[in-house]
Amino acid sequence: MISIICGTNRGQSVSKQIALYYQNSLKEVGANSYVLDLKELPKDFLNVALYDNAGKSEAFNIVKKKLNKSHKMVFIVPEYNGSFPGVLKTFIDALDYPDSLKNKKCALLSLSSGTQGGALALSHLTDILHYCGMNVLAQKPKLAKIEANFKNGQFTNELYVSLLKEQIAAFLPF
Amino acid sequence: MISIICGTNRGQSVSKQIALYYQNSLKEVGANSYVLDLKELPKDFLNVALYDNAGKSEAFNIVKKKLNKSHKMVFIVPEYNGSFPGVLKTFIDALDYPDSLKNKKCALLSLSSGTQGGALALSHLTDILHYCGMNVLAQKPKLAKIEANFKNGQFTNELYVSLLKEQIAAFLPF
Amino acid sequence: MISIICGTNRGQSVSKQIALYYQNSLKEVGANSYVLDLKELPKDFLNVALYDNAGKSEAFNIVKKKLNKSHKMVFIVPEYNGSFPGVLKTFIDALDYPDSLKNKKCALLSLSSGTQGGALALSHLTDILHYCGMNVLAQKPKLAKIEANFKNGQFTNELYVSLLKEQIAAFLPF
Amino acid sequence: MISIICGTNRGQSVSKQIALYYQNSLKEVGANSYVLDLKELPKDFLNVALYDNAGKSEAFNIVKKKLNKSHKMVFIVPEYNGSFPGVLKTFIDALDYPDSLKNKKCALLSLSSGTQGGALALSHLTDILHYCGMNVLAQKPKLAKIEANFKNGQFTNELYVSLLKEQIAAFLPF
Repeated sequence: MISIICGTNRGQSVSKQIALYYQNSLKEVGANSYVLDLKELPKDFLNVALYDNAGKSEAFNIVKKKLNKSHKMVFIVPEYNGSFPGVLKTFIDALDYPDSLKNKKCALLSLSSGTQGGALALSHLTDILHYCGMNVLAQKPKLAKIEANFKNGQFTNELYVSLLKEQIAAFLPF
Repeated sequence: MISIICGTNRGQSVSKQIALYYQNSLKEVGANSYVLDLKELPKDFLNVALYDNAGKSEAFNIVKKKLNKSHKMVFIVPEYNGSFPGVLKTFIDALDYPDSLKNKKCALLSLSSGTQGGALALSHLTDILHYCGMNVLAQKPKLAKIEANFKNGQFTNELYVSLLKEQIAAFLPF
Repeated sequence: MISIICGTNRGQSVSKQIALYYQNSLKEVGANSYVLDLKELPKDFLNVALYDNAGKSEAFNIVKKKLNKSHKMVFIVPEYNGSFPGVLKTFIDALDYPDSLKNKKCALLSLSSGTQGGALALSHLTDILHYCGMNVLAQKPKLAKIEANFKNGQFTNELYVSLLKEQIAAFLPF
Repeated sequence: MISIICGTNRGQSVSKQIALYYQNSLKEVGANSYVLDLKELPKDFLNVALYDNAGKSEAFNIVKKKLNKSHKMVFIVPEYNGSFPGVLKTFIDALDYPDSLKNKKCALLSLSSGTQGGALALSHLTDILHYCGMNVLAQKPKLAKIEANFKNGQFTNELYVSLLKEQIAAFLPF
């Protein structure tokens, strides 16, 4: 079971729509997955699931337990302030170190409203996941100007469709 | 007035102690500062101060207003999972873009329990602050094995003392 | 006297043309500069100017002596393999550490044939220059799809013109 | 056949000694490898093997042909100026893009005289190798204060020995 992590807690995010698109793409090639939307994290997550409070949030424990069983993850990462959203790092900080991520495998995909596409966001995230002992697939699509290239749940840019297909084809046997 | 940002919301953090030490060091050379401890952020910060809710948290607005008046900032950054704490990026995501940080100046200092010292944390943070238009002082002390080198509010490692002095000497005219 | 470093040794490079454009832009606001084209480095540079051979290449010593007198530098950086050209780092490795760069100031500009614009190249270069004690201006224009946006020595993209003007306006008083 | 790349062209390098140590460690677990020392690159490499001259250096073509047949690589990376040596990036710039590296796998190891261990060097190199389509093993030992911890071809620090063993154990089935 592949975990697809929607890397923001913003409501109505494009990231969530792309997470659902990705889930469907995986289904088409026979791979099961579920979407973990960071929007669903407990509201007081920042104060009840970290440091001395680690393990004390029942709601977060359920999220974590499901993730811990998963050996492959896909991170859908919007660019915020030249990197990934703070909530995504906070989420990683609240996981079990190192068991939640170590010796597991992941694929990263970024998106941005602007022209950069999120290259720095994925570079930072790769550093962190490597630190946690998780292998990161080399192919990391960076989808710039996402509003112009993704509408009503579908990509209008063929290049982006093929980048995702390539990534999935490389990820399944990774 | 220099803002010293304690980059974690962990209780009883060494970062907070170093923030206070830094404040005292600034005072000794005649510079005024205050400490903004991320532990003091509103508990529901992650859900009431970002995206569509930007500006809606009165408690956070007060924090932000004070910061916005400051033209120089010091970030005290503990290493969490090979980078800086998620709460610090969340805090940056909740600031006013670009007014809170643009054309301002900062100094960065990292600490770690382990031997790495936080080099990657400060690299990631520099990328983000540059993206926001904030100039970052080149001198960035990275204080490894902090528990062995900082006790009862004082450094026991002379090298660390001199690194901080050098940074402050370069930061004031920056 | 500002040093403008053309960050590749490729012949007929677009980077060189942009270096000349930049020199002219500086001239228009009354700032003197010269272009240091890495193409002009001695052919055996990699073997005669580094490590035990440091200082032994007369040709490189002349280049270095001129650079050492300069307190402000502009780096024009093409994206090669997701970062900056190896020859640029080799050049930095051959400078005097720390005197060539420490406590000086620089502005970075990147260009790419592809859509990324060189964000990672400038992130890596910033890490290195900060390590060497050089302050880096926050504004770092990243010029993607350069062949379509720069022709016959002029930008055809107004956004790029304004990004350079903004950078220069911030760099002169930096 | 695993390629072990000694990432500097400095003579008498510790990196070369560690490359030989690594080769022996691989042999002990039944894996064949050879050491590619960047010191052996043709002296005029920077001017005869890149850009318009790609493919024109017979000496470099031989090096490249051997590397191209290898599907697993180990990079031994000394820290120079807060990153990896310029000659290593120049070497990568001279390879066949993307065939030399794409869809291959590598393990990275860094060393430094100072206390940082090369974390930024490996972060930068990971970005580049991912750009080239090469998968990078998450485990990346960073060996600080190498002169104090490696003598006469052997590690005097047991932690470093175990980090290498762990890396090799993870790399063989990667």
